[in-house]
Amino acid sequence: MGLVVQKYGGSSVADAEGIKRVAKRIVEAKKNGNQVVAVVSAMGDTTDELIDLAEQVSPMPAGRELDMLLTAGERISMALLAMAIKNLGHEAQSFTGSQAGVITDSVHNKARIIDVTPGRIRTALDEGNIAIVAGFQGVSQDTKDITTLGRGGSDTTAVALAAALDAEVCEIYTDVDGVFTADPRVVKKARKIDWISFEDMLELASSGSKVLLHRCVEYARRYNIPIHVRSSFSSLPGTWVSSEPIEQGDKQVEQAIISGVAHDTSEAKITVVGVPDKPGEAASIFRTIADAEINIDMVVQNVSAASTGLTDISFTLPKTDGRKAIDALEKNKDRIGFDSLRYDDQIGKISLVGAGMKTNPGVTADFFTALSEAGVNIELISTSEIRISVVTRADDVPEAVRAVHTAFGLDSETDEAVVYGGTGR
Amino acid sequence: MGLVVQKYGGSSVADAEGIKRVAKRIVEAKKNGNQVVAVVSAMGDTTDELIDLAEQVSPMPAGRELDMLLTAGERISMALLAMAIKNLGHEAQSFTGSQAGVITDSVHNKARIIDVTPGRIRTALDEGNIAIVAGFQGVSQDTKDITTLGRGGSDTTAVALAAALDAEVCEIYTDVDGVFTADPRVVKKARKIDWISFEDMLELASSGSKVLLHRCVEYARRYNIPIHVRSSFSSLPGTWVSSEPIEQGDKQVEQAIISGVAHDTSEAKITVVGVPDKPGEAASIFRTIADAEINIDMVVQNVSAASTGLTDISFTLPKTDGRKAIDALEKNKDRIGFDSLRYDDQIGKISLVGAGMKTNPGVTADFFTALSEAGVNIELISTSEIRISVVTRADDVPEAVRAVHTAFGLDSETDEAVVYGGTGR
Repeated sequence: MGLVVQKYGGSSVADAEGIKRVAKRIVEAKKNGNQVVAVVSAMGDTTDELIDLAEQVSPMPAGRELDMLLTAGERISMALLAMAIKNLGHEAQSFTGSQAGVITDSVHNKARIIDVTPGRIRTALDEGNIAIVAGFQGVSQDTKDITTLGRGGSDTTAVALAAALDAEVCEIYTDVDGVFTADPRVVKKARKIDWISFEDMLELASSGSKVLLHRCVEYARRYNIPIHVRSSFSSLPGTWVSSEPIEQGDKQVEQAIISGVAHDTSEAKITVVGVPDKPGEAASIFRTIADAEINIDMVVQNVSAASTGLTDISFTLPKTDGRKAIDALEKNKDRIGFDSLRYDDQIGKISLVGAGMKTNPGVTADFFTALSEAGVNIELISTSEIRISVVTRADDVPEAVRAVHTAFGLDSETDEAVVYGGTGR
Repeated sequence: MGLVVQKYGGSSVADAEGIKRVAKRIVEAKKNGNQVVAVVSAMGDTTDELIDLAEQVSPMPAGRELDMLLTAGERISMALLAMAIKNLGHEAQSFTGSQAGVITDSVHNKARIIDVTPGRIRTALDEGNIAIVAGFQGVSQDTKDITTLGRGGSDTTAVALAAALDAEVCEIYTDVDGVFTADPRVVKKARKIDWISFEDMLELASSGSKVLLHRCVEYARRYNIPIHVRSSFSSLPGTWVSSEPIEQGDKQVEQAIISGVAHDTSEAKITVVGVPDKPGEAASIFRTIADAEINIDMVVQNVSAASTGLTDISFTLPKTDGRKAIDALEKNKDRIGFDSLRYDDQIGKISLVGAGMKTNPGVTADFFTALSEAGVNIELISTSEIRISVVTRADDVPEAVRAVHTAFGLDSETDEAVVYGGTGR
């Protein structure tokens, strides 16, 4: 008998009907001879509604109390889901993150899992129960306070439990049919990916693909837990994320040269103008940014003008951190020594991801050719072993993504992508 | 420095404004030099909404899961209240029933507190925090599952914590100004009671007064914790419930002869007709009722008719148990041996409560005279040391209560009673 961990996002359990539909699906997995652990997010917009309430009583809600508040959301959905399963004649018990043994550090609102001790889950399973577990939450090792894992935390809960319970697979149910070769809202002919390696999935996640978060994939790779991303609204197989290609029916899924095209319009670009081209200047700039606790993404330094000995340094960062970065740099302007700052939030990033790049030297050239033929101007370039990213005007992103998708033969014969609803957490 | 436990019901924290108002009140108590523990119910109609959701997914929700679900309600209100207090510049921490050390038996939906181990609360207080505690909930000693205490459970939480922390007083904040000499919705001239003994309060609670539940008063009496029932919407002193009269300003509050008039229209009457008047018959009837887990209230056996040797036995019980009692009796009709059953749910009970009865022999006569002058017919009578109760037609109850209230000189000079909102739990 296998052990399966399933995770259902907020849009899958948005109302009583959704909960009953998910209950049926869980019972099916149990009937197929599996032990089943289902990790569940808060219903629909519950989390946003609770945050709204918090803001009504306090402009800066305390982290500890915000976590206490938000974890009420999963408590509601998990209890209802257990009731719905029992109503179908199967035994089920719900567990909070704390009861499930999800031990975290003490960083409220974005805690990290440091251990999972699922003794009660194991007992419940051994007694024939389906175990329902609250996603997104844990308990601090040091203070015994309730913590939350931050956005996408329920996926991480599911993968961490799958690792601790040595599950065969972690199924992530969402409102799309799987991971696509591009965002189906932008590329109608995007194809569902049958299998993708952990490495390619990590690159897609850090390049703007929102189906799985980086942290969750990283965790699955470390413990080698296969993830199956699929829709809770259909019974089609979804996308497998694992170390080795899986077999589907009698056909072996092969490693694609290119996995997909991701895009991201959530970043801004800051250009530091007139920086003296001497050792330590870049370090000084990025130390300032790091001290403000801002993560930067791409960095490019221009060749300095021989006449002046000055250069420009550009980097990208989340738009939400733009104000903070500008303030931090201005405050240290004299110490760093630069002329001025330029801030640009009308940029977009397009990334091509695929392990095949390493052995196919023409990929980079084909990528630039496709962009050029689509009339898209490139502002910044950065590459890794299995990814090429460029920054363009934000307006050019949809056209650029479609052009690259077509150029690399990723288009499907039909418009197959279906998007069902919002996104969970 | 004193330690005060306060309890705020659902109507006091129905929305963000209510939570902010309650936060100010708690901070005031802290500023007055007290250590403060605030026990809070779920916001407004949250509990009913959650029960409604449960019924949508399962007609008979499992007790364990229903408790898990409902306890989300206090989690929300307590976290918001802690945030609101911190926003006023004071330190506060919220605790679930489990974190607060409220240990119960394992009877889901109506668990009983068997121990309180408030170590974390004590620590939080000693570190200068205001402690906010979820009412109505605890954790089972045996199974470690989350439990709830049933209706009125938050009051019991507050009293139990007050006892465990050796508090000076347990303040119960509600939507009325205190305990009244009669229900102000029925008697416009009802007076607020300044002080009432535990014993009289117990009789009022078991006679239909809804301000405090019997279990909570019983707990307070056992540990001798003074209760102060007052309104969260005004700053007037309310009603003190304690073993000895309290002093208010420079006047000593005296023991009243009569504390008040309570009424109850939630009961029904069953008459067992044609019971052989021989030993063991009554026992056989009430064993049947007890086996069905039904609590009965008043019992009256008629004098048997000499000609037949048969008698009638009448008793009252909650209307909600009526069907169950009739079924149980019918099923055992042959064994018990009676002719027929009469069921009557159009009855009401009026009770006069006061320790002064013991030493004022005229009270009973005055009570019956008042009812008779109001044209109210008496169907059943029962008495205790400090209470007389009668059963009448339900329609007669308001007039009967007003007549008795006036006859015993309880009417105030003015219409002082104010009712602010719904009732908490």
